[in-house]
Amino acid sequence: MSPVIWEDEAVSYIDQRELPMRMERRRAATTADVVEAIATLAVRGAPLLGVFGAYGVALAAAGGARGEALRDQALRIRAARPTAVNLMWAVDRMLAAADDGADAPALLDVARAIHDETRETDERMARSGASLLPAEGAVLTHCNTGPLATGGAGTALGAIVAAHRAGKRLHVYVDETRPLLQGARLTTFELRQAGVPATLIVDGAAAATMRSKGVQAVLVGADRIARNGDTANKIGTYGLAVAAAHHGIPFYVVAPRSTFDFTLSDGGAIPIEERGHDEVRAWGGRPTAPAGMDVYNPAFDVTPGHLVTAIVTEYGVLRPPYLESIATLEMRPRLPRAERVR
Amino acid sequence: MSPVIWEDEAVSYIDQRELPMRMERRRAATTADVVEAIATLAVRGAPLLGVFGAYGVALAAAGGARGEALRDQALRIRAARPTAVNLMWAVDRMLAAADDGADAPALLDVARAIHDETRETDERMARSGASLLPAEGAVLTHCNTGPLATGGAGTALGAIVAAHRAGKRLHVYVDETRPLLQGARLTTFELRQAGVPATLIVDGAAAATMRSKGVQAVLVGADRIARNGDTANKIGTYGLAVAAAHHGIPFYVVAPRSTFDFTLSDGGAIPIEERGHDEVRAWGGRPTAPAGMDVYNPAFDVTPGHLVTAIVTEYGVLRPPYLESIATLEMRPRLPRAERVR
Repeated sequence: MSPVIWEDEAVSYIDQRELPMRMERRRAATTADVVEAIATLAVRGAPLLGVFGAYGVALAAAGGARGEALRDQALRIRAARPTAVNLMWAVDRMLAAADDGADAPALLDVARAIHDETRETDERMARSGASLLPAEGAVLTHCNTGPLATGGAGTALGAIVAAHRAGKRLHVYVDETRPLLQGARLTTFELRQAGVPATLIVDGAAAATMRSKGVQAVLVGADRIARNGDTANKIGTYGLAVAAAHHGIPFYVVAPRSTFDFTLSDGGAIPIEERGHDEVRAWGGRPTAPAGMDVYNPAFDVTPGHLVTAIVTEYGVLRPPYLESIATLEMRPRLPRAERVR
Repeated sequence: MSPVIWEDEAVSYIDQRELPMRMERRRAATTADVVEAIATLAVRGAPLLGVFGAYGVALAAAGGARGEALRDQALRIRAARPTAVNLMWAVDRMLAAADDGADAPALLDVARAIHDETRETDERMARSGASLLPAEGAVLTHCNTGPLATGGAGTALGAIVAAHRAGKRLHVYVDETRPLLQGARLTTFELRQAGVPATLIVDGAAAATMRSKGVQAVLVGADRIARNGDTANKIGTYGLAVAAAHHGIPFYVVAPRSTFDFTLSDGGAIPIEERGHDEVRAWGGRPTAPAGMDVYNPAFDVTPGHLVTAIVTEYGVLRPPYLESIATLEMRPRLPRAERVR
């Protein structure tokens, strides 16, 4: 079941804030609904944001918006989360189609194509990523990168699940991923559905777990990747990469080409979204810190490319030097459906 | 106000599980109450556990226990938390006094002496530790190491507060310290009381904060230190030490001599307490992960001595090579009250 689908002239989505306790579907019937679902993280995951944003533009068109009005609504959706580039990429593609004269039904077809391509892209990344993993052993992952994050098989988690299905005997350590606990709430849920053995840890236990549990690989997704491999991803990723390097453990980023920002030479210019203080000062309505306590709550951090062992894309595995391999990725033609993953 | 005091023939303590929302004092009137308060973390902090354990043995004696009965109750208290060595050290000192013929009032005097010595020790560590800190800039700390953790000025936090009082312009980044949020709940509370500017972050943000906020020093306490400087402390400390080394930031451990375990050549033999799964699967009664999800919840990790820049004790600052400086510490006579900190 996809976390985002077009249904009854609206975008239906699983409200990920309620998982794993409740699987609740909601309905975005207006651009404001779409923006709110993104801003509140009811819908999250960099690739899924692209799919959702594309359906959002189709929704605006179905509601009658044309020309500048459509562009205005699309740009509101595009700005709802500043770090992830997939959302911008998908909205821009929808706007380009509109500029080319696509009407509302044609725009919905483009959104559906983006969704289909995401599924295909995920399958390719999963196969490539799985090939990097050992025949058995522990792996560690952060945040949520499975079906709930993409609408397909997932990115990092897609690779882990594909390796499991191919007979590799992996045990997954899942960071809970404060502040919003996407690892605890969502990744555990997805791993259970896939039947992959998994254990939840607090984020602070990651370095000790790498050492004491013999972690063989760390896999994460990405929200934006610069030309030198600098990778913005969920807060905590940078510390994991540092710890992985310290232990000599390979650190893999799994992300589709739409996550790359070819306009950036390095990660210094990636905007880092800072989120509300109450995400850290309270949980489930119960305070966890003194009222009014100052909080620094960046949602993402940037891992330098030199700490990234490889980047798995739908075009295959990119290795350092990234200035070369990512430049090659930029030049690759759009992937035909039938092209084999190298 | 001390978090632990002798009052009305019982040990009165602040229940730290309720902070910062409620400042509630409870009363341990039996050995079982003492053990439960330790096991549930109502009383925590390595040095404070020593003070509390000593009062606990005095309580057993006041209740009429003598000889083997007193020893049995003392050993139950001693075993309530396996990682922190201060608790064992204090209980052993009480038992030695009992073996030397101390009666119940004399044992209470020994417990009070341990408490007084803790206060004096903390003052000395605070002055030494403060001298290591820069005149201005950001510092980062983990878990809780202030008055609530020791019954005196604290260890790492004592040094930070002393530096602030001496006019250094520090800004403290406080890790929330999952799973039990001692940083969010307790350290923020103590820093406010001391008037030190501070900002709360999630544990996963520590590495990014070191880089983006120009952190000048990381300070932590310790639960047990081996002869080579290997340091057991709250889970997450090891990852901080790795990240500090990666950024070239000094990493300081602040701990009294009673935290050293001179019987251990390295940290490999330090028992690491694993705690209940619901500390990670739920918060404030609200589930944060699927029911029954497997959890690995070590309460501590071990930071290798080679990642520790210096260890601040009441005898002054120990530097590598620790096999030499800690051996010298072992040989030092018990500190007379008047001895100046070098």
